[in-house]
Amino acid sequence: MEDNKVKIAVDIFGGDNAPDVCIQGVFQALSEDSDIIIYAVGNETVVNEMAKADKRIIPVAANEVIGMAEHPVEAIRKKKDATIPVAARLIKDGTVDGFFSAGSTGAMLSAGTLIAGRIRGVKRPAIGALLPGYDHPVLMMDVGANADCKPEMLLQFAQIGTAYMKSVCGVAEPKVGLLNIGEEDEKGNAFSIDTNKLLRKKLDNFYGNCEGRDLMLDEFDVVVCDGFTGNVALKTIEGTGKLMFKFLKDAFMSGPTTKISAALMSSQLKELKKKTDSEEQGGSPLLGTKGVFVIGHGSSGAKGIKNGILETAKTVRCDLSKAIEDAIK
Amino acid sequence: MEDNKVKIAVDIFGGDNAPDVCIQGVFQALSEDSDIIIYAVGNETVVNEMAKADKRIIPVAANEVIGMAEHPVEAIRKKKDATIPVAARLIKDGTVDGFFSAGSTGAMLSAGTLIAGRIRGVKRPAIGALLPGYDHPVLMMDVGANADCKPEMLLQFAQIGTAYMKSVCGVAEPKVGLLNIGEEDEKGNAFSIDTNKLLRKKLDNFYGNCEGRDLMLDEFDVVVCDGFTGNVALKTIEGTGKLMFKFLKDAFMSGPTTKISAALMSSQLKELKKKTDSEEQGGSPLLGTKGVFVIGHGSSGAKGIKNGILETAKTVRCDLSKAIEDAIK
Repeated sequence: MEDNKVKIAVDIFGGDNAPDVCIQGVFQALSEDSDIIIYAVGNETVVNEMAKADKRIIPVAANEVIGMAEHPVEAIRKKKDATIPVAARLIKDGTVDGFFSAGSTGAMLSAGTLIAGRIRGVKRPAIGALLPGYDHPVLMMDVGANADCKPEMLLQFAQIGTAYMKSVCGVAEPKVGLLNIGEEDEKGNAFSIDTNKLLRKKLDNFYGNCEGRDLMLDEFDVVVCDGFTGNVALKTIEGTGKLMFKFLKDAFMSGPTTKISAALMSSQLKELKKKTDSEEQGGSPLLGTKGVFVIGHGSSGAKGIKNGILETAKTVRCDLSKAIEDAIK
Repeated sequence: MEDNKVKIAVDIFGGDNAPDVCIQGVFQALSEDSDIIIYAVGNETVVNEMAKADKRIIPVAANEVIGMAEHPVEAIRKKKDATIPVAARLIKDGTVDGFFSAGSTGAMLSAGTLIAGRIRGVKRPAIGALLPGYDHPVLMMDVGANADCKPEMLLQFAQIGTAYMKSVCGVAEPKVGLLNIGEEDEKGNAFSIDTNKLLRKKLDNFYGNCEGRDLMLDEFDVVVCDGFTGNVALKTIEGTGKLMFKFLKDAFMSGPTTKISAALMSSQLKELKKKTDSEEQGGSPLLGTKGVFVIGHGSSGAKGIKNGILETAKTVRCDLSKAIEDAIK
């Protein structure tokens, strides 16, 4: 094992379709990226079998799983032998650089904060979501870690998000927007009006309020919000996309002529599906904790798991923790 | 003029494309619905000319307009002769039954509350938006009248929304949901957790939390939220739809074969555009004030204005104010 390889822990038992899709995702990731070592965390028998098939897989026994419905903080404390806390300890003791799981978002957040610990100076870690803009991706954060926020937290989200877009996505000068219900500075609810004032005062790269309709229209690179609003917006995007595809499918399937049309368009439709497919992204980064935590969609298939692992590796290579620490100094 | 005709005031100078599209919209509405009388409110010369063309048009002089950027409450007080306050006074004195404007949303809300007045028992009027669900429309409210809310307000929104869906949309037993970030009752921010408890206790037709992704997937008929969250969600739906159409257009225009595909699909694509077109809806009802106020999109074309007028007439015929008064008793 060489030292320049990136070491990633993968939760083999996280997500709705685990362990099958996780096992497949690990092997697919290994075949696409030869410079990673996977610490496969999960049921002893399963991970030992995986390790036999490829010497780049290190088995790590963790015989419990935290369910989606369990209270995250309690679960992390009680089930010390579950996949998520076991992998978080691998981050804490420096065994691995990154950790990917499609399991409980709440458990990932708790493990990141309570076990791995926050980066120096970070008040509250947040979850980012990379949205597919027309020309370039947009990082929206927080999308669910902090349902109730204070303006100071959004200032940090903006600084952390700026660091992410610079170091991971290569955007030279990221523009920050505040998710709000009017373009003018004085619009909004009490919280967003206060936050706008703070961002205007403290953030050089603040470009003003961003309305829901402008989220993905390329005006901003980072859009900050409290975790409640961000989660509603993120899931509304997913729901709208799903509804549009349903309408589109009905239109294409409505008669013999439209079916021919669908056949003529099949590769372009696949491309469109890919552009708007959450599995293409692989996962949402948890930002502000030590190490790199990436949270996959619970419904991920093998492709989603593979992309999540590759994204985790990419983020590790960008030395994001250092960039975040510098950004909030 | 017969008494069974519905009398609707129309702001001829409201919206980005006024007065041209408003004039066209009025004549289109009159040709589709023979049982309405239009009170055309606006510049004296213009509305007098309109009245000459059709005896079902009554001219009402109002020589000022409230701009989109003006402070609504101040503008209503200072510009007493502007279209929106003039029309609201027609509601107050019983001259007309309904009022449609594609002008300033804030001014409509202020005029509805300060001039027409609230329906007995209503704490805070709210703006509803009828979203295009897959099988049936969904009323989301509030979408912008009240940026900061208390749980009791959302309970009233639920009651008012239920009355609207029953009397205007003919839904026998509307199901109410609370826009939130998790399906379980205990999920959310402090506000939504409190609101969930109140709705569980007081509302017979409360069916639990609704996540953003389920907004338009037919599980609920009414989804309540504070005006900040609702406005973000509404505009995010618009933005996502716009982005999807951009991607789709690019796909159809990418080569000679896909252009043939587009030609074969043209009528279905128009149908899809129609399903997701905000102008088809015509406007958002302001709910809780006396009389019927319907707010059109600022960017409405003639079709949007026409549909807004027809929707206003339909709502008047449903005797909504009485239904709302009964619902919140």
